[in-house]
Amino acid sequence: MAQHIESSPLSLTFLGTSAGGGPSPTRNCLATALNLPNESWLVDCAEGTQHMMMRVGQPSPEKVTRVFITRLRIDHMFGLVPLILTKMYAPRSKHVSASNADSPCMPPLIVASLQTRLRIYGPAGLRAFVRNCLSITNTELVGKYEVIELLRDGEQYTPCNKEALHMNEALGRDIIANADGTWPSFETTSDGWTLSAGPLVTSFPGTSMGFIFQEPHITIPPSKDYVALLHCVSETLFPPGLRTHADLLRQLGNGKSVTLAQGRFVLDPFPRIPGRKVVVLGTTSDASPCAELARNADILVHEATVAPIVETWNGIYVDGVRGEKDTARHAIKWGHSTPTMAGQFAHRIGARVLVMNYFGEKYAAPCESVASR
Amino acid sequence: MAQHIESSPLSLTFLGTSAGGGPSPTRNCLATALNLPNESWLVDCAEGTQHMMMRVGQPSPEKVTRVFITRLRIDHMFGLVPLILTKMYAPRSKHVSASNADSPCMPPLIVASLQTRLRIYGPAGLRAFVRNCLSITNTELVGKYEVIELLRDGEQYTPCNKEALHMNEALGRDIIANADGTWPSFETTSDGWTLSAGPLVTSFPGTSMGFIFQEPHITIPPSKDYVALLHCVSETLFPPGLRTHADLLRQLGNGKSVTLAQGRFVLDPFPRIPGRKVVVLGTTSDASPCAELARNADILVHEATVAPIVETWNGIYVDGVRGEKDTARHAIKWGHSTPTMAGQFAHRIGARVLVMNYFGEKYAAPCESVASR
Repeated sequence: MAQHIESSPLSLTFLGTSAGGGPSPTRNCLATALNLPNESWLVDCAEGTQHMMMRVGQPSPEKVTRVFITRLRIDHMFGLVPLILTKMYAPRSKHVSASNADSPCMPPLIVASLQTRLRIYGPAGLRAFVRNCLSITNTELVGKYEVIELLRDGEQYTPCNKEALHMNEALGRDIIANADGTWPSFETTSDGWTLSAGPLVTSFPGTSMGFIFQEPHITIPPSKDYVALLHCVSETLFPPGLRTHADLLRQLGNGKSVTLAQGRFVLDPFPRIPGRKVVVLGTTSDASPCAELARNADILVHEATVAPIVETWNGIYVDGVRGEKDTARHAIKWGHSTPTMAGQFAHRIGARVLVMNYFGEKYAAPCESVASR
Repeated sequence: MAQHIESSPLSLTFLGTSAGGGPSPTRNCLATALNLPNESWLVDCAEGTQHMMMRVGQPSPEKVTRVFITRLRIDHMFGLVPLILTKMYAPRSKHVSASNADSPCMPPLIVASLQTRLRIYGPAGLRAFVRNCLSITNTELVGKYEVIELLRDGEQYTPCNKEALHMNEALGRDIIANADGTWPSFETTSDGWTLSAGPLVTSFPGTSMGFIFQEPHITIPPSKDYVALLHCVSETLFPPGLRTHADLLRQLGNGKSVTLAQGRFVLDPFPRIPGRKVVVLGTTSDASPCAELARNADILVHEATVAPIVETWNGIYVDGVRGEKDTARHAIKWGHSTPTMAGQFAHRIGARVLVMNYFGEKYAAPCESVASR
C-alpha cells in the first residue's frame, strides 16, 4: 500500500515586514499572505498592501477571502478598506444599470452582491472601523463582507442588527474568549481548516493577538485491490453500528479502526498525513498565552523588532541599549521581542521553522539591496 | 529701472492620477503635490501617496504642511491617516521618556508636540474621519494637526470642543460657504498665499470641490538711486495721511500711486509681478461654480475621466459609448468630464496651462511604459 501522496502547495508571502515607523522605499508595514491552492488569507493589511501584491505578483485581491487583523493599529490595518474597494469595486454605471434592469434574469452583478466575498477577523472595534470608513466615504460595493470580532470577556459588542449594518455588510459574529483568554477552534472552514487565535502580551494589555491555522488531516486513499479485499469481508462480521461496506470504508477513512467479530480481527484505519499548522503572531513581548494553540507549528512567524545587531545609530547608542540582556529588557519594556526571545518561543512550542518579522524601517529589503547593487 | 526679478520656483508633482478603479502597478489613486520653496501642499491623498513620494523623491512627508481633500472618497483620502502617522511619528519610548523628564528645560519632543504641523482642509465629515481613525487605533503623535471643514449652508458641524478633540488635534475651524456655494479667500497664509475653494457639479450633489491657490503679488524693489531720489522730495509736498518718507515708500510699495501737492506730480507705485494662480479641481462634470475663482489660472488641473480614445475594451463597446457626443453624455451622466469638456472650461476661464488628470487604471504611467521597453 506504499503510495506517494503530496500535500497541496502552501506558501507565505511577506508583503510587509516593517515596524510602525515604516513604510520605507523597499518595505511596507505589516501584511503576510498565506496562500492556499485556491485562495489566500491575509494576516494584517497595512497601507500599500495591494501595491505590494501587484509588485510581487501574488496574491491578487480577487484571491483574498479572509483577512485577520492582529491589532487595531494604523500600521496593521490601513490597507484593509482600500483593498475591500479594489476587491469589490462597483463602477457606479454598471451597478446602477444592473439595479435598474427589468430583465427577468438577475444580472450577474446583483447575484455577486448577495455573496460574502471577504471575511475579516480581529479585535473589538474592527467592525465599527470598517463600517464607519465605508459609510463616511459613501462607498458602494459589489458583494458582501463580514466582520468576526474576537472579544475578550466584558468587551463591548459592535451592534450587528440590520439597521446598523453597512449596505454591503453581512451579519458578522462575536466570538468570546475562553477563560484563559484564547479563542481555540473558533471556526472550521468548508475545506476543513481550523482557525484559532490567542492573546499576546505587549505594552498595552489586550491589544494584540496571534492566529493559528490548522490544516485538516489528509487521508491517504487505499489501493483498489485493498478496497476490493475489504468488500469481501462478510457484513455479518461487522460490529454493531456498521451495516454496509460503505459504512466500513467511512469509519476506516475517518481514522478509526474496526474490530470484526469472530477471531477479533482488527482493521487499521487508512493512513493519514497530519495537516500543517501555520502560526502568525502579532506584536508581542511574550507569546505564552498562544503557546498551547501554537504547539508543533510547522511554521511560526514571530516578531523580533528589537535586535542588538545595530547598537549605534549615527554613533549614538539607541536608548542606551548595548548587549543581549539590555536589549531584551528594552524589548520587553516596549512590548516587543528580540531574536533570542523569538527563538526561545519557537523552541518551547517545538516549531519546525521560525520566521522572524517586524523590523525597523531603516533596514532595506534584502532582494532590493541586491538589485540596487 | 529695468530689473530682472525671478519668481520662486513652483512645481506640481502628480503622485496619483488614477480614477476610483485604481491603483495600478504604475499609477496610484489621486494625490497632487504643489511644491513651494519651503513646503508642499497636497491636494488629495489616496492610499500609497507616501510610497509614491519615496519613489519619485518628492515631497517628503516632513515638507507637507497642508492637505486639501476634494472629496470624502476612499480613492481621494485613504493615505491621509498613515501620512499623519509617518509625519508625526512618536516612537513610544522616546515620547514617554520625554514626558517623564524632570529636566527644567522642555525636551524637544514636548516642544514639537505643541506645534501644529499639519492643516487639513475638506468637506464636512473629514474631521470626524481623521479623529475616529486616530482614536480607534490608539494613535499617539508628536505635534498637532487641525482640520478646517468647508461647510455648505446647513451642514452639520463636527464638535470641536476640548473634550471631543483627539489628543493631537488642535482646534479646527468651520468655514461656511457664501450664498453662491463658494469659499472665496477663506484663508491667507503667513507668506501671503490666498486659499479659496468652490463646489463642483458631479453625480452626487455637493460632494466634490476644487481648490484655488493664489500667490501674493511680488513687488519689485526700486533701485537705490530711485529711493535716494524719492528721499529728496520734501515732506511738505506729501498728501494728507503721509508724514515721513517711510510712509511714502510703503504706499508706493503697496501698489498705490501718490499725488504730490504743487504741480500735482504723480508718483507711480513700484512695479509688481502678479502672483501665480494654481487651480486643482476634484471630480466633476461641470466646474462652472468654480469659474470665477479660477479665472486666469496659470495652471488648471481638471479631471478628464471619460475619453473617447479607447472605444472598445476586448472588442466590446464600453457602455455603448462611441463618438464625442455620446462620450460627453456618458461622462456627464456619471459625474465626469471628457478631455473636450476640460479644454472648454480651461478656455472659458482663460487658463494658461491645462493638465488633464484622473484616468482609468488600465492606462500605465507613460514613463513606466517607456522604462519597461
